[in-house]
Amino acid sequence: MTRGLFITLEGGEGSGKSTQIRLLAEHLTSLGHDVITTREPGGTPEAEKIRHLLVHRDGGNWTPIAETFLLFAARSMHTETLIKPALAAGKIVISDRFADSTRAYQAYAGGLPLDTVEQINTLALGNFKPDLTLILDMPAADGLARAGKRLSDDNSGEDRFEKKGITFHEKLRDGYLAIAKAEPNRCIIINAAQDIQSVAAAIASCVTQKVAA
Amino acid sequence: MTRGLFITLEGGEGSGKSTQIRLLAEHLTSLGHDVITTREPGGTPEAEKIRHLLVHRDGGNWTPIAETFLLFAARSMHTETLIKPALAAGKIVISDRFADSTRAYQAYAGGLPLDTVEQINTLALGNFKPDLTLILDMPAADGLARAGKRLSDDNSGEDRFEKKGITFHEKLRDGYLAIAKAEPNRCIIINAAQDIQSVAAAIASCVTQKVAA
Repeated sequence: MTRGLFITLEGGEGSGKSTQIRLLAEHLTSLGHDVITTREPGGTPEAEKIRHLLVHRDGGNWTPIAETFLLFAARSMHTETLIKPALAAGKIVISDRFADSTRAYQAYAGGLPLDTVEQINTLALGNFKPDLTLILDMPAADGLARAGKRLSDDNSGEDRFEKKGITFHEKLRDGYLAIAKAEPNRCIIINAAQDIQSVAAAIASCVTQKVAA
Repeated sequence: MTRGLFITLEGGEGSGKSTQIRLLAEHLTSLGHDVITTREPGGTPEAEKIRHLLVHRDGGNWTPIAETFLLFAARSMHTETLIKPALAAGKIVISDRFADSTRAYQAYAGGLPLDTVEQINTLALGNFKPDLTLILDMPAADGLARAGKRLSDDNSGEDRFEKKGITFHEKLRDGYLAIAKAEPNRCIIINAAQDIQSVAAAIASCVTQKVAA
C-alpha cells in the first residue's frame, strides 16, 4: 500500500451497514491491508460526546440546523484527528456514515436546504471527501422492518430516526439516490435487499476495483 | 413597551459582565420593563449541554472550527426558542455574551478566519443581531487579575480561557475594539476599569437612550 483509501457506507435504517462493514474489514485484512473501521457521529472521544447529545436527545429537541452544526463539529474532529492521519499512514479507513448522512437526513429528509449543508460541509472539511461511498439501498419499509427487529434485540437506545414515519424514510432513500446520481464517480448504489453474502460480494468487488485503481 | 429590545454584554475575563447585568436588570425592572437575563453558551436546556461540553472540555480538546460549530448550534437554539419569542412578547432580553464572543475568542484571539465565523453566523442566524452591545473594556492584565481573584472564590470549574496567556487576552481585547469600530451603531465601549457604580451608570445611560429611541 502506498496510499490510504477512505471508504464510507451509507444507507437508511436496517440497510445492514454494520454487518457489511465487519465483513468488508475482514476481507480487506485477509488480503493484507491495514484497515481501520469507525463510525459517525463519533469516532473520537469529543465526537462520541456529541453523538450522545444527538442520539439520546440529551437536553431536548435539536433543530435541523443545530443538528447539522453538531454533526459537522464532530465530523471536523473525526476527520482531522483520526481519518486524515490514518490515510496518511497508508491505511484503509471504513466509516459507518459520513457527510452524505447529513445531506440525506437533515436536508433531503429533514427539510434543511441542501445548499446550507454544502456550505457547512465546505467550511468544516474544505474539499475533503471519501474516495468511495457505498450506498446500501432497499425499500424503506423493508429496512424499517429489519431495524424494528434489531431494536427489539438490543438496548442501545439509539432509535431516534426509526421512530419517524415511512414518509421520512422514503425521502431519505430518494435523497441517497440523488446523492449517488450527483456524484457517480464517488458513489455506488448496492442492492441491499439481497442476502448478506451477495451484498458482501458486491461490495468487495467495488472495493477491489478501487484499491487496484 | 411596544417592542422588545435585545441587549448583549461582551468583554474579556474579569470585566464585570455578571455584576453589571444584574444591576442593569434591576434598574430596568424598577422602571417597569419586563426583563429576561440569559447567557451564552447556554440559555436553553440543549445549549447548556453544549456549554458543559465546552467549558469542561468534556471529551477532549476542541479545534476552533469545532468550537465555533458547537457555539452556533447552541446560539441557534437559544435565539429561536428563547430570545426571539421574548422579544416578540415585548420584553428586554439581556444576554451575557452572544455572537461577538465567537468573533473575539475564536477568530481575533483564537486564529480562525473572521470570514469563517461570519459565514457560520449568517447560516445560523440570518441577519438577526443585538439591538445594542455593550463592550466592557479594560486592560487585559487587570481583568485577568480580577478573574483570578474570583476563581479562588468559586468552584464552577469554568476557567478554560483564564488559563491562556496574556497575549491571548490582549488579542481578545483588540478584537472587541475592532468589532466596536466595525459596527459603531450597535456597539458601545464602556470603560470597565471604573468602579462598579460608575460602570453601571454609564451602561444605564446608554440603555435609556436606546429604549427611548
